[in-house]
Amino acid sequence: MKRQHDMFNAFNADHAQGVPPQDLALISRREAALGPAYRLFYERPIHLVSGQGVWLQDAQGQRYLDAYNNVASMGHCHPRVVAAVSAQMATLATHTRYLHEAPIAYAERILATMNQDVAAGSDQGLGHFMFTCTGSEANDLALRIAQAVTGGEGIIVTANAYHGVTRAVSAFSPSLGANAALDPWVRTIPAPDSYRAKPGQDVGAQMADDVRAACASLRAAGYKPAMLIVDTIFSTDGVFDGPKGMLAPAVAAIRAEGGIFIADEVQPGFCRTGERWWGFQRHGLAPDIVTVGKPMGNGYPVAGLAVRADLMAEFGRRTRYFNTFGGNPVAVAAASAVLDIIEDEGILAHVDRIGHDFREALRDAPHRGHFGDVRGAGLFIGVECIDPETGAPDPAMAAHIVTGLRDHHVLISNAGAAGNVLKIRPPLVFAEDDIAFFMAALAKVLDI
Amino acid sequence: MKRQHDMFNAFNADHAQGVPPQDLALISRREAALGPAYRLFYERPIHLVSGQGVWLQDAQGQRYLDAYNNVASMGHCHPRVVAAVSAQMATLATHTRYLHEAPIAYAERILATMNQDVAAGSDQGLGHFMFTCTGSEANDLALRIAQAVTGGEGIIVTANAYHGVTRAVSAFSPSLGANAALDPWVRTIPAPDSYRAKPGQDVGAQMADDVRAACASLRAAGYKPAMLIVDTIFSTDGVFDGPKGMLAPAVAAIRAEGGIFIADEVQPGFCRTGERWWGFQRHGLAPDIVTVGKPMGNGYPVAGLAVRADLMAEFGRRTRYFNTFGGNPVAVAAASAVLDIIEDEGILAHVDRIGHDFREALRDAPHRGHFGDVRGAGLFIGVECIDPETGAPDPAMAAHIVTGLRDHHVLISNAGAAGNVLKIRPPLVFAEDDIAFFMAALAKVLDI
Repeated sequence: MKRQHDMFNAFNADHAQGVPPQDLALISRREAALGPAYRLFYERPIHLVSGQGVWLQDAQGQRYLDAYNNVASMGHCHPRVVAAVSAQMATLATHTRYLHEAPIAYAERILATMNQDVAAGSDQGLGHFMFTCTGSEANDLALRIAQAVTGGEGIIVTANAYHGVTRAVSAFSPSLGANAALDPWVRTIPAPDSYRAKPGQDVGAQMADDVRAACASLRAAGYKPAMLIVDTIFSTDGVFDGPKGMLAPAVAAIRAEGGIFIADEVQPGFCRTGERWWGFQRHGLAPDIVTVGKPMGNGYPVAGLAVRADLMAEFGRRTRYFNTFGGNPVAVAAASAVLDIIEDEGILAHVDRIGHDFREALRDAPHRGHFGDVRGAGLFIGVECIDPETGAPDPAMAAHIVTGLRDHHVLISNAGAAGNVLKIRPPLVFAEDDIAFFMAALAKVLDI
Repeated sequence: MKRQHDMFNAFNADHAQGVPPQDLALISRREAALGPAYRLFYERPIHLVSGQGVWLQDAQGQRYLDAYNNVASMGHCHPRVVAAVSAQMATLATHTRYLHEAPIAYAERILATMNQDVAAGSDQGLGHFMFTCTGSEANDLALRIAQAVTGGEGIIVTANAYHGVTRAVSAFSPSLGANAALDPWVRTIPAPDSYRAKPGQDVGAQMADDVRAACASLRAAGYKPAMLIVDTIFSTDGVFDGPKGMLAPAVAAIRAEGGIFIADEVQPGFCRTGERWWGFQRHGLAPDIVTVGKPMGNGYPVAGLAVRADLMAEFGRRTRYFNTFGGNPVAVAAASAVLDIIEDEGILAHVDRIGHDFREALRDAPHRGHFGDVRGAGLFIGVECIDPETGAPDPAMAAHIVTGLRDHHVLISNAGAAGNVLKIRPPLVFAEDDIAFFMAALAKVLDI
């Protein structure tokens, strides 16, 4: 079956080469059973059977260094998460309409991490935490709250943002491609691209100007602005980490227009970006809503949002919210184990140190001018592949490296509107030895 | 904090009586941490700490017979599901962009159960299965497919339907109440109420007429009909199981109008309604899309949809679908264990027999005319509470019984637009002894 090639690094059955016959047979069964909306990574897909720490293993026993997956953020199959889930599953797995202490204690605990910069006694912090199963559901609920509390519809996102796959959220996720149309009340603004900014350009001030222009465009079309939502590390836009504080003017701009600011921490959250627990804290922001997901349960489906209590008061009085699996004691056991590991294993400081060393190593790689920029924060790293002559984005080089690393048993992917940015985002327990393994593989791939 | 009382059988802090002090303190923490959109069941909420089979236990050690929860459908903490999840969590938990046999094999297996009435070699069956995490996500994706393949927007649901909580799905879930507004392209039709139908009235023909009228109303407002979606046991409308075949004219009607038919099996599916695996099979239907959820993983968050291959071809070619946790090997391990238990423990035949016996026992209860109708299929039972004099719906009696049974340590709830229908929906491993326990408690409650 012929497919539109709408995703970087996607398998294409028309050009399958070197795929083992037994995998080809499984791919064919997969196509039949799961249908044409499913995609596989890589020209030669990887048939995984097990994982441990930063390593994944395929059906032939080949091991791969995982430098891409941000869900198993504490390492694949972390024994403390497995034990916590197994024990709670054998004890109780009901829902939030019965009283249970675990979701309450978890909410208190995660809110405290988010409110670290809020003065004690202030009511400006994030007051409530609500549980969903996926980041998509969290962003979908954030949208409902934003539209309800502002009385507006207008949504502002960055040009290649991804926020999720529900009907409403996919319609403000331009990275899904031209076939997933944006809703008429959605406006896109450029991501704060510090690499391609003009010398001396203030990307933060520019972003605020763009927010104001987007609001004007919304109003001209009859839509009142409701929200600005950004992934605070701009994962799919190409990984933009700074300068720190750059988002503050845009946040002020959306508030001045009557909208609220939503920090999508589904990818940057839970210490991924180093220094601080949350990406918004790196920028000194106090969001109105924060959404979280992917690594929250180290693989168990759990997500949610934090929201200012004053925003929630009116919405919550009028609208009940119930998510059958959201906040069940097993989900909370997984999520609590992740918080325990972060604290007990000193993850935040580790991410900060290792991320710094990893970026330094990448800058020192024999890239001969093909790496225009090595950026990121903590263990969310973007490498801008460019033509050394012209400085233009070089998606072919990025694809070459992604595929080449796979052949040398290292997993990464690419991002950015042009697909020319290497997206390197390993489990947070990535160590110095893993950097060395990665760099050795990269050196072979770059030897072209 | 004052709340609008928008849900049957909800806790109300303003009238809390007899709640133990330690639970009141926890409820207060809960209100602060989770916020005002959360609801608890019962005037005196139940603080659960463990569960096994059909029994749940509270913090004081009191056991409750669970005659309500349809997620732990194989019984709370079924050891085979716990073992399957624990083993797979310790082995691998990644996503569907790597090749893995488990989701493929599961898709083949569940599709076979749904296509039992489809002639071999026919292309009229459900060709693909796609994984989500929640029933809401499944219905949300079904909506996207329906609107894409029909080119229409119009949605027809029953008057007190519930299909989920995403932005789009909550807007076609009228049971969420007047504050969750329906989208302008949504029309409601009466549920096929065989109890209150006029003598001789054909509820199926009436429903088809209602679908045609709804389509006319949509067209008059400029909306092309896209879909009719029904919960095939009409759970929130008041539990309407028959007559068998009653839905066929309505399905023909929506197809004649260019729309598709979506069977929402999130509540009735997986043998809940006895006789057949799926509610739509009880009515002899061949849906275009079938959505499933709640009991699929016996508590693990897993859900999905089955769709005709011809409908998916165009949508899937244009639109990729990726759900981070959807179809991960752990979710599939839970879901596969449920299928194993259904087959190995003879669940379908058991549900049919026990459900029949349970309804007979309810009809024989000393209800002195307060039970106008005892209906349902398998272990999804509705009991219509009425005023014996006038025959009018009696929600106060239903509330009295729900609360009274709680005080005698049996859990049920109520449903229907008026809230006068007892909703009895125990784990499917409910046994004759459990019926006896239930009936003894009910007799005490009815002794008024």
